[in-house]
Amino acid sequence: MTYCVAMRLEKGLVFLSDSRTNAGVDHINTFRKMRVWQRPGERVVVMCTSGNLSVSQSVVNIISERLALTDSANLFNAPNMFEVARHVGDVVREVHRRDAEALREFGVEFNASLIVGGQIFGEAPRLFNVYAAGNFIEATEDTPYIQIGESKYGKPIIDRVLRYGSTLADATKCALVSMDSTIRSNLSVGLPLDLCVIERDAFTVKSHISVNQDHAYYAQIRGQWGERLREAFADLPNPDWL
Amino acid sequence: MTYCVAMRLEKGLVFLSDSRTNAGVDHINTFRKMRVWQRPGERVVVMCTSGNLSVSQSVVNIISERLALTDSANLFNAPNMFEVARHVGDVVREVHRRDAEALREFGVEFNASLIVGGQIFGEAPRLFNVYAAGNFIEATEDTPYIQIGESKYGKPIIDRVLRYGSTLADATKCALVSMDSTIRSNLSVGLPLDLCVIERDAFTVKSHISVNQDHAYYAQIRGQWGERLREAFADLPNPDWL
Repeated sequence: MTYCVAMRLEKGLVFLSDSRTNAGVDHINTFRKMRVWQRPGERVVVMCTSGNLSVSQSVVNIISERLALTDSANLFNAPNMFEVARHVGDVVREVHRRDAEALREFGVEFNASLIVGGQIFGEAPRLFNVYAAGNFIEATEDTPYIQIGESKYGKPIIDRVLRYGSTLADATKCALVSMDSTIRSNLSVGLPLDLCVIERDAFTVKSHISVNQDHAYYAQIRGQWGERLREAFADLPNPDWL
Repeated sequence: MTYCVAMRLEKGLVFLSDSRTNAGVDHINTFRKMRVWQRPGERVVVMCTSGNLSVSQSVVNIISERLALTDSANLFNAPNMFEVARHVGDVVREVHRRDAEALREFGVEFNASLIVGGQIFGEAPRLFNVYAAGNFIEATEDTPYIQIGESKYGKPIIDRVLRYGSTLADATKCALVSMDSTIRSNLSVGLPLDLCVIERDAFTVKSHISVNQDHAYYAQIRGQWGERLREAFADLPNPDWL
């Protein structure tokens, strides 16, 4: 399984992904699910992947190969983020044409869901969810985030605190709390995490770090959030009418 | 969809169910999913159902019919809660034999998951999850709760605050907070709620009420929990290392 979440805010973008893959509980590995491509000052694009790992890796490889081919559409010559999302969708369809039938013969579903976001000079930051069929949707001010993979455990906190006007710091904190709730409830989501923060109009990555269990801030958030939740719960009035 | 949760504690049992059913988003109805059978002073049994509503209703009807047949196994002559769970499992299998094939012809899955709990004189309170195949598992001191239906949104808070030693009041509060998180995230789970609380060794229901949106305590919990969560979140340190 996988859990990735990305947020598109007035002030920029936040991406967070876990790194656990499993093919059955006795076949668990660590694979990074976040990729960053940038031309500082001009564009920055981040992609997070979930679903069948062979599909995800094929998509990432083809996208990377195409960067060198200046006569075909690629992430570096796409004029805007909408075209980036279409390009990613096209690559997913290409992998589908090659692999889906063979996978089906072995009872394996062609399964992929991707987050693609970033900013290209001339536009505001944008964020998309590309599906296995190559179609996609875009995050809006009303719903400024996209989750892929095991999304349910970590959704309530996002719905309660995240707004389009949230700061990048608050959004990062929110993403980490959401990830913590998911990791506690689903063994197949695990550390280390990849965190990437992009400031609006910087056209480069502000912060791109790996968070493991020794990461002081994440450890602090985990401990303190659990404690404060229990306090908040204890402070709720008891049902004395029972 | 449905969300039901039940907790088996040192001091008794708590059951909470929503009442929304849907066959597509344009076919939403209210059906109660909780049933209580009791012989005060001797036994009390509560059942919550999820899955295909025709299956659930058939199971409940057959169980009720059997109560009058003293020469066959039923909820009132079962010597203990294990035999109650087996009886419920047998009834599910009976419905399966009658309906599963016909449902499959119409592309409808035979889909059922039930919570069955209670106490019979001579035993401690017990709690089971009966599956569509008629098999079942029992809640333990380590995992003192069972959820059916849309369980993920409301699981993190239960994992953080519920213990086997929790009071019935705290467990009720926890179930209501868990339900609130679920209702906020999934439109197909909705009010009114059925709440049933059973004290250990009382062999009767302590409280069995319907909670709708005018219920003062539930309204208070909903408002205050959201507020305290946002406060707890705001109090977490900001990632100044970004």
